[in-house]
Order: sequence, then structure tokens, then C-alpha cells
Amino acid sequence: MRVLILGGDGYLGWPTAMHFSALGHEVLVVDNYLRRRIAKKTHSEPLIEGGDLATRTALYENVLGTHIDWLELDLADPESMFHAVKTQRPHAIIHYAEQPSAPFSMMEFDAARLTLNNNLNVTFNLIWAVLQECRDAHIIKLGTMGEYGTPNVDIEEGWIEIEHKGRRDKFLFPRQAGSLYHTTKVLDTDLLWFYVRTYGLQVTDLMQGPVYGLSTDQADKDHGLAPNFHYDDIFGTVVNRFIVQAVASVPLTVYGKGGQTRGYLNLKDTLQCVHLATQHLPGTGQMRILNQITETFSVCEIAERVKSVGNAMGLNVDIKSIPNPRKEAEMHYYNPSYSGLKEMGLQPHYMTDEVLAEMLEAVLRHRNRIDREKIMPRVQWS
Amino acid sequence: MRVLILGGDGYLGWPTAMHFSALGHEVLVVDNYLRRRIAKKTHSEPLIEGGDLATRTALYENVLGTHIDWLELDLADPESMFHAVKTQRPHAIIHYAEQPSAPFSMMEFDAARLTLNNNLNVTFNLIWAVLQECRDAHIIKLGTMGEYGTPNVDIEEGWIEIEHKGRRDKFLFPRQAGSLYHTTKVLDTDLLWFYVRTYGLQVTDLMQGPVYGLSTDQADKDHGLAPNFHYDDIFGTVVNRFIVQAVASVPLTVYGKGGQTRGYLNLKDTLQCVHLATQHLPGTGQMRILNQITETFSVCEIAERVKSVGNAMGLNVDIKSIPNPRKEAEMHYYNPSYSGLKEMGLQPHYMTDEVLAEMLEAVLRHRNRIDREKIMPRVQWS
Repeated sequence: MRVLILGGDGYLGWPTAMHFSALGHEVLVVDNYLRRRIAKKTHSEPLIEGGDLATRTALYENVLGTHIDWLELDLADPESMFHAVKTQRPHAIIHYAEQPSAPFSMMEFDAARLTLNNNLNVTFNLIWAVLQECRDAHIIKLGTMGEYGTPNVDIEEGWIEIEHKGRRDKFLFPRQAGSLYHTTKVLDTDLLWFYVRTYGLQVTDLMQGPVYGLSTDQADKDHGLAPNFHYDDIFGTVVNRFIVQAVASVPLTVYGKGGQTRGYLNLKDTLQCVHLATQHLPGTGQMRILNQITETFSVCEIAERVKSVGNAMGLNVDIKSIPNPRKEAEMHYYNPSYSGLKEMGLQPHYMTDEVLAEMLEAVLRHRNRIDREKIMPRVQWS
Repeated sequence: MRVLILGGDGYLGWPTAMHFSALGHEVLVVDNYLRRRIAKKTHSEPLIEGGDLATRTALYENVLGTHIDWLELDLADPESMFHAVKTQRPHAIIHYAEQPSAPFSMMEFDAARLTLNNNLNVTFNLIWAVLQECRDAHIIKLGTMGEYGTPNVDIEEGWIEIEHKGRRDKFLFPRQAGSLYHTTKVLDTDLLWFYVRTYGLQVTDLMQGPVYGLSTDQADKDHGLAPNFHYDDIFGTVVNRFIVQAVASVPLTVYGKGGQTRGYLNLKDTLQCVHLATQHLPGTGQMRILNQITETFSVCEIAERVKSVGNAMGLNVDIKSIPNPRKEAEMHYYNPSYSGLKEMGLQPHYMTDEVLAEMLEAVLRHRNRIDREKIMPRVQWS
């Protein structure tokens, strides 16, 4: 299978590239290093980060013996997108190429504008490149569980049948996101669904929760193949921030009441899910939506888990609530469905004590490089 | 009241500017003549069109005695938007400034891209200009009934309360539009609602149906003040096309079965509705959505109405079904609510035989300028 991976330098993109290459597929990754530039500009450099694509693909070939092609291109530029698609003539396209930080998207006008235009145009250019160059290709788009927000009803997998005044119809599940970044993913879904139903594209839209973990079969072969690890307030997820705070003896900063509940998954399961998606074509004119999580936790539950594992390892871990920089419900109903990927064969790797301990150990090896200034929230939602 | 009208050169923008000015408000209109450029490029010049804003505002001042300010600016450019908002310091902003043609948005990649980027960026820039310069201003956004599509359930005014598995929540009414243009209006709604609920803006989003008519109190004073009248396949609505076909002895071209049902309203009622919206503030943090139509018709019903009125005037009107260039349901359920504006005091001007006769007479005065090449559909949805 020829696979095109958009955003192949990212935390998920690079492990995905290695995963598909190791499975014997022809892989082309594309990235323009936008995240690296934003990280530098906002003083949010990661604790762990591999070299650029030239360096990493060379190392990968050395260590694993197979080749990954790469291109440095800005996919928000139509010509670049068409070039990438024409070069690879892909069977499957995995689209991670978006500005992924919610706080960055809420920072100020220019950051918000960049997020809106970059994310929408990459998706739009991809749709048109597929329409014109490889109409049968399977687009696998990374959405986010954040598109749904925290509704007071059960969250279905993408679609809902509504009965209203005695009549019924099926619609996209209502979406109401908590940041501009998450809202751009809602707009992506709207756009994709329009072009799917109008021109018969085939799309899998994966509503993913926050991913944690540093270990994959390929990444574990060499430190230089590791995915990047952000612990800053801009790109770092709550799990990463807590792990770093535990190591740095900074109290784990729970935003507000800490009842914010989300679905999480292990990096290994992202790889499984994306691969399962490529093995199950949705069919022409279908937009299949899957909720890509394996378990749900509140922020307080994660803090307690990290505290307990950290203290057992001899760290001195405290938890401290701080004012919530975001506008979000801190106590809310949350009951998402996520059976689709399990039915396809997903074997979850749960957030066990061992997994948290491994992450703590990985970070301990870099503890002298932790910059405490990067951890506390610098962006307010209002 | 200081009123800022974005897209003030358009079919609705210019009559709105005159209406508010005649009511004694300070009006600034902004436009970049995008529609005029697209019309020229696609050979879709209108049958009736006034001069540019310099010409029309001068004529208006001559005839009506009050002054309308204007600026030629591209509002998709942030600096231009901020400049317009800072110049007017508006109490109310009426936002018509979008690429309004569904067929143009479906023509090819560049047209689609222009539609997406122009429409989204104008709305986005407006949101930020209001956030930063006049947070209390009331944004009145023209959406479209087309955002809802043609669901199999009753269409509510913007919102729906859903009961699902024994729990309830209120959401934006599901949206599923029939063209990329209409989809950009869905994205506008998503964007506006995100910023309204996050930063407490106040927005009225008017879901408008196709508007017909050439007569307003101000436009009727001088031919040079008339709104533009498009009858081409790109910018012309079905009512205008049928009126011109009736005059030109071309059979009225019904797309497919002609059961496509939509809500319509008279131009005079658009002016009333927009004015009523300015008189009823939604309140901080509120996004009020109103369905701006006064009656519903199927395409066949409109064709029969135009045929009957035209033949009574001595024209020779036939009706002919042609293959549908669009992808849309040709027979469907359609039951939208539209009580909100009536409760505010809207006095509808219905599509009577007299109104259709007036339109036919207006077009008869220009019959020698009708170009039959412009009427038939040139854009296919697939």
C-alpha cells in the first residue's frame, strides 16, 4: 500500500510513518515544521525531540532497514498539496497536518488566524487533490473528541438519529468545541462531510482523545527515533505536564475543580487504530466516524494516578488546584461511545501504573533539562 | 445609531444602506466589488445594476438628501476590517460581505477556494475587530436557510432540544448544506457561536431564504438607486430566472422534478427584518438565530405562478424540466419555523400576483438587453 502521511514530523505523524513502513508499506511523509517554529517562538520547546525528517528517516533506515520518503512542504499551499498527492499516488492518506495547540489558537489574533487558515486550507486542499488526482484514495482524518465538547447526553460515534415532533432523521452528532483549535476540527468535519456526500469521496474521521506515551515498537529501537515530548502549556497535554511536574517536584497543577473528563489512549493504540482504519475501507460516499479512545479519566483521577505511581518511585508528588485559564465545564456529564475500533480488532493498551512509571522514567533521564517556566498556563481563554 | 454595512454594494447591502440612512442613522458601507468582478469574469453581468458606491451615494444624497459614507476595502484583509470598524465605531454591524453564489462555489478549485477563504476570513476578521474595538456592538450576520438543507424533521429557528437515551441538551439545529457556498455559512455559524459563548459577543444570525423584488421606498425614487438584478445561472435566483425567461419567451427551466421547496421573502421584508434585529438586542453572550422567510414554495409552484401572471400580461410562458445540475433532493419534506421575526413585528409582503407583475414589468423595460446565453446552468455539482 502507498501511504501518504501529512504532518509526519509530529508526535503522532512520525511514529505512524515508522509503523506503516515497518509493516512493509511505501510511506511518504510531508511536514513544514510549523509546530517546531511555533514551539520556538512561544518558548515551548519539547523535552524530547528527534532531528528533522532528513535526520530521522536516515537513522530509521540505518536501524530498521527500510526507507521512508519525505518532503518539506507547506500543505496549506495548494500546489504543494497537489505535488505531494501526485508524487505518492496514495491508497491511504493520513491527515495529521494541523496546528494542534488549543492554547496557541486562543493566544491572540495572529495565532488564531494562522490556526483557522492553516487547518482549513490543508483539509480543503487535500479534498481537492484527492478529487482531482486519486478519487478512490481513502482519507483518514484525525479529528478530536473535543469536537463534541461535553454535552449533557451520551456522545455517539459521529452520528445521531434524532426524533423530533414525530419524525426522524440522522445527522452529524452536534459539535460544540472548547477552543478555536477544536472548532477548526469541527469545520474540517463539516467540509469533509459536504464533499463526501457530494462527490463520493471515502473518509474515515477519527475523533481522538489526548494521546500519551513514548513507546512504540520502532521508537524503542533508538533514542533518536523517539516521538517528541512536550510538557509546556502550549503543546503539552495534561498527562505530560503531570509527569514532568512529578519529576520536577512541582505540585501537579489541576485547572479548577479537575472534574474535566476526557477519553485518553496510548500512543501504541493510535498506531493500531490508524492501521485498522486503513484495513477497513468505509466505501465510496461514506464518512465513517470513530471515537478513538480506550478509557476516560477526570483530570483529578490522572493527577491521583501520577501522584501514586510517582510517590511509589520515591518522588515527592503533590497536587494543587489553580485557577482555570480555560472556559470549560469543570464538573459535567461525560459518556462517550467508543466501540467501533474495538469491533475492528483494537487491543487496548491501558494507562496502567507500569505505563505511567515508564513515562516517569523516560522523563527522569532528561530531568536536568526541564524548564519550570514552561509549565504554568500563559494563555487565558478570556 | 451608527451602522456599519459590510457588502454594501450588493443586492441586499445597498437597499439596506438606503433604508437605515433614510431612518436617520449614520451609515458606512464597505465593499470591494468582488461580486462585480466575478460577474464580469463569468459573463454573468446583471440586467439591472446601479453605479459604483461613489456614484450611488452621490445620487442618493441628491435625491434623498441624506449622506451615506462608503469605503472600498477587502474585508478578508484584517487591516481593512479593523480600519472599517475603527472608522465607524458602530452600534450595529450588518454582515452581507460574502461570495454569495452557490454555483460559483461549485465551479472549480480556485472558485471554491476563494469562496471558502473570503467568507470565513471576513467573518473571522469581523469577530476579532468587534472583540478588540467595540465589544458591545451587535453583529447581525446574514446566514441562509440553506444551512439546514432539507431534513426529514421540522426545522426550528437555529436551535433544537434533543432528548437522547433519557437525557436532554440544547444544540445548534443540525446543518447540512447543498453547496460549498452554503457550507461556508454553516462554518460561519460554528465560528460565531464559538466566539459568542467564549467571549460574550452578541450576535443575531439571520437564516434567510432567497429574496425577490426590486422595489423599496428609496429605490423607487430613482432608477439609478435600484438594487442589482441578476438572472444568470451564477447569481440569479430561481424567481429572477423565471421572470426573465417569461419575458424572453424561453420556457421556465425547472431543475429536475421541481419539488425543491424553500422559504422566500420580499426585499422589503429583508429590510424590515434587519431593522427589527437592530431594535431587539440579543444580549451579551447570546447568539439569536431567526429564520428570515415569510412563505414557502416549491420550484414548480413558483413556475406556475410566473406562468399564470405572465400569460395574463400577454406573454407566452411555458415550463420545461431540465436535468438538475445540482445534487439535491427534488421531492422532500420541508417544514421550517419562522415565527421569531413576526413576533418582533414583521409585516410580510407576500409574493402576490401584483408583486410578480411588477417584477415582470421592470424586466420588460430591459428586455432588449436580455442575454439568453446567461440563463442555462453552466455548473454541474459533480
